[in-house]
Amino acid sequence: MVIKTIEKLRETLATARRENKTIGFVPTMGFLHEGHLSLIRKANEENDLVVVSIFVNPTQFGPNEDFETYPRNIEQDTTLANEAGADIIFNPSATEIYPIGSSSWVNVEGDITSVLCGASRPTHFQGVTTVVNILFNIVKPHRAYFGQKDAQQAAVLTKMVQDLHIDLELVVCSIVREADGLALSSRNTYLSSEERKQALILNQSLLKANEAYKKGETDTKTLTKLIKDTINTMPLATIDYVSIYSYPALQEIEKIETPAIIAVAVKFGKTRLIDNILLENSK
Amino acid sequence: MVIKTIEKLRETLATARRENKTIGFVPTMGFLHEGHLSLIRKANEENDLVVVSIFVNPTQFGPNEDFETYPRNIEQDTTLANEAGADIIFNPSATEIYPIGSSSWVNVEGDITSVLCGASRPTHFQGVTTVVNILFNIVKPHRAYFGQKDAQQAAVLTKMVQDLHIDLELVVCSIVREADGLALSSRNTYLSSEERKQALILNQSLLKANEAYKKGETDTKTLTKLIKDTINTMPLATIDYVSIYSYPALQEIEKIETPAIIAVAVKFGKTRLIDNILLENSK
Repeated sequence: MVIKTIEKLRETLATARRENKTIGFVPTMGFLHEGHLSLIRKANEENDLVVVSIFVNPTQFGPNEDFETYPRNIEQDTTLANEAGADIIFNPSATEIYPIGSSSWVNVEGDITSVLCGASRPTHFQGVTTVVNILFNIVKPHRAYFGQKDAQQAAVLTKMVQDLHIDLELVVCSIVREADGLALSSRNTYLSSEERKQALILNQSLLKANEAYKKGETDTKTLTKLIKDTINTMPLATIDYVSIYSYPALQEIEKIETPAIIAVAVKFGKTRLIDNILLENSK
Repeated sequence: MVIKTIEKLRETLATARRENKTIGFVPTMGFLHEGHLSLIRKANEENDLVVVSIFVNPTQFGPNEDFETYPRNIEQDTTLANEAGADIIFNPSATEIYPIGSSSWVNVEGDITSVLCGASRPTHFQGVTTVVNILFNIVKPHRAYFGQKDAQQAAVLTKMVQDLHIDLELVVCSIVREADGLALSSRNTYLSSEERKQALILNQSLLKANEAYKKGETDTKTLTKLIKDTINTMPLATIDYVSIYSYPALQEIEKIETPAIIAVAVKFGKTRLIDNILLENSK
């Protein structure tokens, strides 16, 4: 069932709540791939009713980013989401979510939003935290599902839920990859076949660093250089960042001692891809 | 019943919700007076269960304001709130509401928070919107009650609820005054008897302006001057602002055509008092 308005969604969910059904929520920007579908399947396993939102959120795109051209396909998304176990697809308009004159924002301040993607996309996380807060207020789920692919987003939203005492369980699910290792992303559709081939270097460079770490290399400068050198073997790759931080606080570290994340953002032509790997400290 | 922890409050409210009880919520900073009690009584009339929070919220005080000395009396508050119909008094510690490292904020941007008290207290409304958002997430009330005394706060919170699609009814209740017209405020306790006497000029000046308006004066400059001249007859009064804005958007106006508010903030010694009157355009 596709629902377009907040009023209708609230009515439908109120009925489910009266029947004591648990509600699982998967917020997406649509153009669903296997990564999203794995979240929907997990939500379906763990809850009585699954709501999937499909909303290309304008406030999380910067002025020169790809909001207008971001891929959309609501018919295909509906079919895929239903097959994966969605009960309700919430597909609101921008003015349904942001009424005219709307000017309220939710911000998570500190390193957690200013490093990595926050550095290259300064208004991005404000848009994410605001829209997710709004969607949580509308859906009021018992559990909400996000992918580890957007590791910083998962960390920021986990902090938002804790800080603002939002009453739900935030579930972070592991990255889904193609057979050849490319992390799934709606933006992969932008890649030419040559870019697609060279983009495999993201995952490969992370695995290489993980190998070096397992062999005892804990110096973040050395590991960062190893990854950069690996990525730079690909002529179409332009590195945005290669960073190693503590996780989930995202603080700078020189040695890997606590749980850490290696995160990379690399452009291929106009397409910016991200990938990451978590390094556990218990070897 | 006084509850100190979020966990215990959530447990108690979950039981009430399972019994389909409606929850009315009155957030306060304590030192309850007849103004607060009128909100609690109204909440009691309109809901099955009434939660009153008593929390002197540090984030809404500026660095040189009266957070430390703000009057507190939890025993008396408990008695008064219970008599007025409170079922649960929620009295958390600061670290219960703001865990260590907490850095998430809710902001309502624009004129509505930058004029009036927002101009003289630049971080005040961010503290108010954040704590009220947190308290709403904890209590999840059906209705929440605020006084028209803090007119700008009521307007800002109404906008926050609309913008972020918070699922509750925000009820704004009229100002409660002493027999001689002084608007009730926990800060009235700071006034010396001479200051207390001279402070009557706030309400008197507003009534005088309202009279002039009713007789046809709609020029905001003229009305503002009338109020300032009236307040300045009191030697102990130092005006912070006298302002007339559209209501509830709080936009500057030259003529009163739409619903408008006259709001005043005046210092007597170290004590800053506020008062206001709503002017309806249908005469």
